[in-house]
Order: sequence, then structure tokens, then C-alpha cells
Amino acid sequence: SNAYRLAVIPGDGIGKEVVPEGLRVLEAVSTKFGCVLNVDHFEFASCDYFQKHGQMMPDDWKTRIGGHDAIFFGAVGWPETVPDHVSLWGSLIQFRREFDQYVNLRPVRLMPGVPTPLANRKPGDIDFFVVRENTEGEYSSIGGRMFTNTEREVVIQETVMTRVGVDRVLRYAFELARRRGKHLTSATKSNGISITMPYWDERVEEISQGYPDVKWDKYHIDILTAHFVQHPDWFDVVVASNLFGDILSDLGPACTGTIGIAPAGNINPERKFPSLFEPVHGSAPDIAGQGIANPVGQIWSAALMLDHLGETAAAAGVVQAIEEVLSRPEYRTRDLGGSAGTADCGKAIADAI
Amino acid sequence: SNAYRLAVIPGDGIGKEVVPEGLRVLEAVSTKFGCVLNVDHFEFASCDYFQKHGQMMPDDWKTRIGGHDAIFFGAVGWPETVPDHVSLWGSLIQFRREFDQYVNLRPVRLMPGVPTPLANRKPGDIDFFVVRENTEGEYSSIGGRMFTNTEREVVIQETVMTRVGVDRVLRYAFELARRRGKHLTSATKSNGISITMPYWDERVEEISQGYPDVKWDKYHIDILTAHFVQHPDWFDVVVASNLFGDILSDLGPACTGTIGIAPAGNINPERKFPSLFEPVHGSAPDIAGQGIANPVGQIWSAALMLDHLGETAAAAGVVQAIEEVLSRPEYRTRDLGGSAGTADCGKAIADAI
Ligand SMILES: CC(C)[C@H](C(=O)O)[C@@H](O)C(=O)O
Ligand SMILES: CC(C)[C@H](C(=O)O)[C@@H](O)C(=O)O
Repeated sequence: SNAYRLAVIPGDGIGKEVVPEGLRVLEAVSTKFGCVLNVDHFEFASCDYFQKHGQMMPDDWKTRIGGHDAIFFGAVGWPETVPDHVSLWGSLIQFRREFDQYVNLRPVRLMPGVPTPLANRKPGDIDFFVVRENTEGEYSSIGGRMFTNTEREVVIQETVMTRVGVDRVLRYAFELARRRGKHLTSATKSNGISITMPYWDERVEEISQGYPDVKWDKYHIDILTAHFVQHPDWFDVVVASNLFGDILSDLGPACTGTIGIAPAGNINPERKFPSLFEPVHGSAPDIAGQGIANPVGQIWSAALMLDHLGETAAAAGVVQAIEEVLSRPEYRTRDLGGSAGTADCGKAIADAI
Repeated sequence: SNAYRLAVIPGDGIGKEVVPEGLRVLEAVSTKFGCVLNVDHFEFASCDYFQKHGQMMPDDWKTRIGGHDAIFFGAVGWPETVPDHVSLWGSLIQFRREFDQYVNLRPVRLMPGVPTPLANRKPGDIDFFVVRENTEGEYSSIGGRMFTNTEREVVIQETVMTRVGVDRVLRYAFELARRRGKHLTSATKSNGISITMPYWDERVEEISQGYPDVKWDKYHIDILTAHFVQHPDWFDVVVASNLFGDILSDLGPACTGTIGIAPAGNINPERKFPSLFEPVHGSAPDIAGQGIANPVGQIWSAALMLDHLGETAAAAGVVQAIEEVLSRPEYRTRDLGGSAGTADCGKAIADAI
């Protein structure tokens, strides 16, 4: 059936402004493409909620949203009241881990109407995906301090990679590469990070055996960031550990003009748990509450969500509507040099559908 | 006195081609600026040496070069014969650690005649330093594997930060910022790497108290890489952990056109041990032996070395000579779109002095 239950979580800051625009576009989609979207709204996973309840989420959060088909998420974080590592580890990173959203999928595409900081690049030149491991690796919670507050103080944090965790994200990336340009790039740093990263390389080597039709290469993360700037046209699918994927999926969108419009899917490919779709940008306290935030990242996330739900035509329709509207200066928000408000841009995209 | 003992280690690949050009320029410097450079050549710290001796360096390497005033280093690594993590951990990373070269200093500057991938940037627009912690952090040797070759396989590597290690590199960076534009940027990821990185932030906060005249800010590494591309003019001194500094000091030079000309100083500021100067680029097996490698990174490293030795006029002279020669198309190597050979470019810079 094409009816879906969505858990909507706006979170903090501009999350509350851009999520309604995402929903506006989803409404237009449901009319046009005839899918039924049943929406439940949740206030938790926000710093407001933390201030009232002393924790980011209720104890039963998993039962409340675990049965939904997808989570449509805004942004979380309000460092003035709650430190980032508290708010984020108490919400977003919980979702990723508890709902086993082990793939963080982030398209990097140069869109019309978005000025790129790179010389001589035009829409069409840059079009790839970053596939980021999303549950383990450098984002561990193991470690601690010793000799605290003395000159001998030592602080340790462990990076943890598992065979299961590494192999499954590599397989996802190889599958994606097989469906696209048949070219995979692996981010490594085995020349410096001498235990986990050589392991990562070994697993890539091993998993690649099952994909003889996919050409693959690898670069150390340092030179890979350089190539993103100098040769963004080289890439098709880039697979990376949690931290390296985090870096590459901000750097990639920056090369295509702005992280302000980039989307992300936190995906459990087996659909055992709901996947979560969110813009790459954060809650942006500096511009929150002014109605000027760019809603395109949120709306593009809706497209990723539709794709995940199997509504591929609707997904393509949203991306096309985004491209159309971005080409028209009057609907560009301030960050893109225009003067449109959040809602102006959102309405234009909804209308274009 | 202005007589110095240099240990010269060409290493592998193009290291052997660019080091002689660095020495050529240093000879010109010694004539022009009247300093005496006594040079000792060493074959170890290379994969050739490894193939003969089964290890990268002789057991007594510390006594052989520990008494020199500086190490002038090419590049190490020849993955066809020795895996990178063996060759690098057996040489370069040993030097950094055993000679307590706890600062890795890397200038990022847009030079004349070097085409930048960024739109609308010209020489003068980008000019900052990356100060990278160089002995601890993510580059640890602690960790291992368990349940090897089974589905339960788990691989762990520890990031280790010490109060001593973090504070001293932060102080170096604050001092440098005080002498320059009085602006320091700290690279963090305390919202994701939730144990070591909040610690790093705390120490920055604490050390900053001693530098009320230095303005400082911090960015998470993901958005910081985006800012390098979008706003490279924002930066003056950027301080970072070992891994983040590694990434930023390839990305920065890429934004200014190429890592092919970028230099690095691995510095023991107290001069208890020799410091090591090397180009940022590696041994480049793909172009080694052809006489076409760009020697500017090696020569610029010589300038950093002269600066460290207190020969500031000579250092400035070398940088000026590099700028002069880079402005002239006929001396540009292939990587910069020219057709000059390694030696043509090196000679031109030596002549310009
Ligand atoms: C070769 C490698 C181990 C080294 C590093 O990561 O430190 C290099 O990239 C560098 O920046 O000097
Ligand atoms: C907010 C932060 C914890 C998060 C991450 O590092 O994963 C964000 O940067 C992202 O990329 O989704």
C-alpha cells in the first residue's frame, strides 16, 4: 500500500521553521502522486524538551516512534542551554544507533542557481553520493580520563570497528555504485591510523571481490579532501567511516555551494527500524526565529525519504521542483543572495509540484 | 654562530629528486647570507634501506642524527615493496615522536602563478598557518583485534590526549597568533567525538586565558573543512589535533592550488632535539624517476628550516625567490601546467637568490 506513517520531529532552532516547509511540500506530493502520509508530531529530541524534563527524550521514545515508517527530522542543538554532546548524544545519535540506521546517505550535487566557490564548475559537473558509516567507528562512547586536573592528565577515547558494522556499509556502497556509475572510492588513513584503518582497507578489498563490475580506488582522507576541491568530478560513490564521512559530507556540499541545502538519510536498509531524514545543516541559533532559513535541505530530505519509501516518482518530482525553484532568483533565501523568506521558498517548491 | 649541521634524508621516490634542489637553493643561501651549512647525507628512513636491512632505520639512528641542528627530509613510502603503515611508522612518525617534534607547522598561502581551484581568489587573499599536534591524539599505537577472522571480529584503536601534549601545542599556536593577526581558530568535534574532543575544547578555553589579546573561535571539523573552501580568508592560525591537522593541512594547500608546493616543519620548539623539515607531498611513485616533480615544496621547507634556525632574512629570501620564479611560466613544472623539469625550477630559484 502507499500509505505511510511519519514521525515528525522539528527539534531546535531553524528545525522548527524548515520542517513545516518540508511538510507543505509533502502535502503537495501526496495530492499529486496519490500517496497517503499520516503525520504524528513529537516535541521530544529538542533542547526545549530537555529544559522541561531533564532529558532529551522520554524513556519510552522507542515505542512511540519505532512503529513509524520514517522519521522526518529538523535539527537538534541549542548550545546556550544544553551542551552539544549532551543534546546530540541524547537524540540524533541515539536514533542512529538504536534504530540501527547504519548508512548515512548524502548526495553531493551542484544545483542550478547555487553559486559554487569552485572556479569553472557548472550544474552536472558534480554529482555523487557520500555513504557514511553511521553507528560505530570514531563515534564511540568508550574511554575516559585519568589523573584528572593534574599535569599527568590523560584522556582516552576508543575507535571501535566491527566486521559486521564495516561489511554492511561497504556492501550498501558497492550496491549503490553498481546501480550508478560503477565507481566506488574508499576513504582511509591507513598510513597514520595504523590499527582500525588498515582493517577498513582489508574489508574493502574483501567485499570488492563480490563486485567485479565495480571499479574502486581508495585515498587517504587528507588527500581525499584535497581531491574534493580540485577534482569533484572524479567521484561517484564515496564510502567512509563515521568521522571521515561526517567531514566529507560537509566538505562535498560546500564545494557545490552550501551545506545549507544538503540532505541526509539515516537509513536502516533492512527496514527493521524507521529511517530518519534530516538536512545536513544544524539548528543555526544565529538565524533562528527570523523566518529566513533556507528550507531546501529539509525539502530535499523529504525527497530522500520518499525514495526510501519506494515512492521514486514522487522523490524525483521533489528534486525537479527544487531545481526549478532554485533557478529563479526571486525564491532564493538570503544565504543564496536572495531575499525570499523560508515560507516563500517552501511555497514555491510546493507550487512547482 | 651561524654554522649549522644538517642531516639530509631524501627517503623514497621523488624525495630523491627534490632534496637535491633544496640543497642547491641552500647553497645559494649560504653564499648570499653568509651562513655555513654542514651537510651529512643518510640513506636510512627509506624503503630501499628496508629492503636491504629489514627495517627502516638502523638501531642507532637517534645517535647518528640526534646531534644535528635540523633534518632536511624528502618523502618516505613505496607501497609496492613496503606497506605505508610500516614505512611511515618506522621512520617519519618515529622522528616526530622520538625527537618530540610536537608541532607540525604548515603555511597555507596563495602564491602568484599557482592556479587555485577557488573562484575569485588572488595571491594575498589566503595566508594562514595550520598548527598541528604531532605526537599523540588519533595517531596512537594502542589497540588491536579480537575474534580475528570471524563474524564477531572487533578492532579497536585508542585516541590518546595528554594535558602536557595538548597544552604545549595550544601555547605554541596562541604565541604564533599573538605574533601574527591575533586570531586563532581551534578545530574540534566535541559534538561527536564525545570524550577527547570536549577535553580539547576545555584546554583551549583554559590556555586562552593567558592570551587575552588573541581572539579565538572554534569550529567542528566538518564545517571547518567547508569554511576552508568557502571562506579561506577567515583564518590566521588554525590549531588542530594530529588527525584534524593532517586533514586541514592538505585541504588548505589544495584550496591555494596544490599540495605539490606546500612545506611542513616538524618542530621541537625547545630545540632539545632536531626539528625536521619536509614537503607535504609524498614520494609520488607515479611520477618518480622522471625528473618532473615540483621541487617547490622541498625548497619552501628549506625556508621554514632557516626560519627555525634563526636565519630569518635567509628564510624570507627563499620565499621571495620562490614567488618570483612561480610568477614566470617558463619555470613551472608539469603539475602547474608548465614544462620545466625539477632541476630547471630548482636552478631558477637558486639563481633568484
Ligand atoms: C604519510 C602520513 C603518515 C603523514 C601523516 O598523516 O602524518 C602525512 O600525511 C603527513 O601529513 O605528513
Ligand atoms: C551534530 C553532529 C553530532 C552530527 C555528526 O557529527 O554526526 C552532524 O555533524 C551530522 O553530520 O549529522
